Amino acid sequence: MQYGPEFHTPITDRAAGVVLLNAAGDILLVRERGVTAQPGKAGLWHLPSGTVEPGENPQDTAVREAWEEAGVRVRLLKFLAAYLGHFPDGTPVLRHAWLAEAQTGSTYQPQFGHEVTEVRFVSHPEFLALYDAGLIRMHHTRLFYEDALRETGHT
Amino acid sequence: MQYGPEFHTPITDRAAGVVLLNAAGDILLVRERGVTAQPGKAGLWHLPSGTVEPGENPQDTAVREAWEEAGVRVRLLKFLAAYLGHFPDGTPVLRHAWLAEAQTGSTYQPQFGHEVTEVRFVSHPEFLALYDAGLIRMHHTRLFYEDALRETGHT
Repeated sequence: MQYGPEFHTPITDRAAGVVLLNAAGDILLVRERGVTAQPGKAGLWHLPSGTVEPGENPQDTAVREAWEEAGVRVRLLKFLAAYLGHFPDGTPVLRHAWLAEAQTGSTYQPQFGHEVTEVRFVSHPEFLALYDAGLIRMHHTRLFYEDALRETGHT
Repeated sequence: MQYGPEFHTPITDRAAGVVLLNAAGDILLVRERGVTAQPGKAGLWHLPSGTVEPGENPQDTAVREAWEEAGVRVRLLKFLAAYLGHFPDGTPVLRHAWLAEAQTGSTYQPQFGHEVTEVRFVSHPEFLALYDAGLIRMHHTRLFYEDALRETGHT
């Protein structure tokens, strides 16, 4: 039998970002300013990441967002995962992340200062403390971080 | 607010494969033998692809399956997409594909001859005719092919 279009579930909302680790296994995170439209984000930490624009390849989104949100020119080293989630209203969202390394030209200063207030490396223990305190915006960020630690031999 | 684990939808069934195009934009497909456990596959064409094993990175799955099913040593050029689908019983499945190119050492002979009977390039018009005849196993294969043609400037 053929798995035709009736076996396909389109996901309109997609996001993509990067996991950038330093030699110690710390992860680069950005802190959300919390724009008027999304006040619930304010002060929370997350991956340099953002919405996949219509027609955009998620891999290109990840590279673009690393620059816009974290001021990092990245080279993607490896795909990590695509995780399915949903928003409070039930809308599904597919989030992709890549393991990445910084290239020449990185400033570690957000280009979109209206979205991000801070960019810095966070150690794994600090990450877990932030997570427990509800300050990591996405559970998916934790999953991606664990994937990256495994891929790089830190765990 | 934090999007905690309650906003994560685990997908246990995942698959990954490669889209390998020649200069004319033809796509490399494999033809399923249809093993006893899955007789519905017999004679259908699909991407060199297969199941993501527990703990395996989908990117590694894609490379492995290209060799096992199509005898191609691939270098992955770019992520294409991850598409969500489901099986007839409703179980969700996430399928990933990468644009790839063949490397030295490719034989274009299936290593797993008990799964695949034939490996060959199929032109876009022939692909569409096979699709309409119900001989392309996955609608997702069509989506991945279209993504690859776009990424490579064929459309």
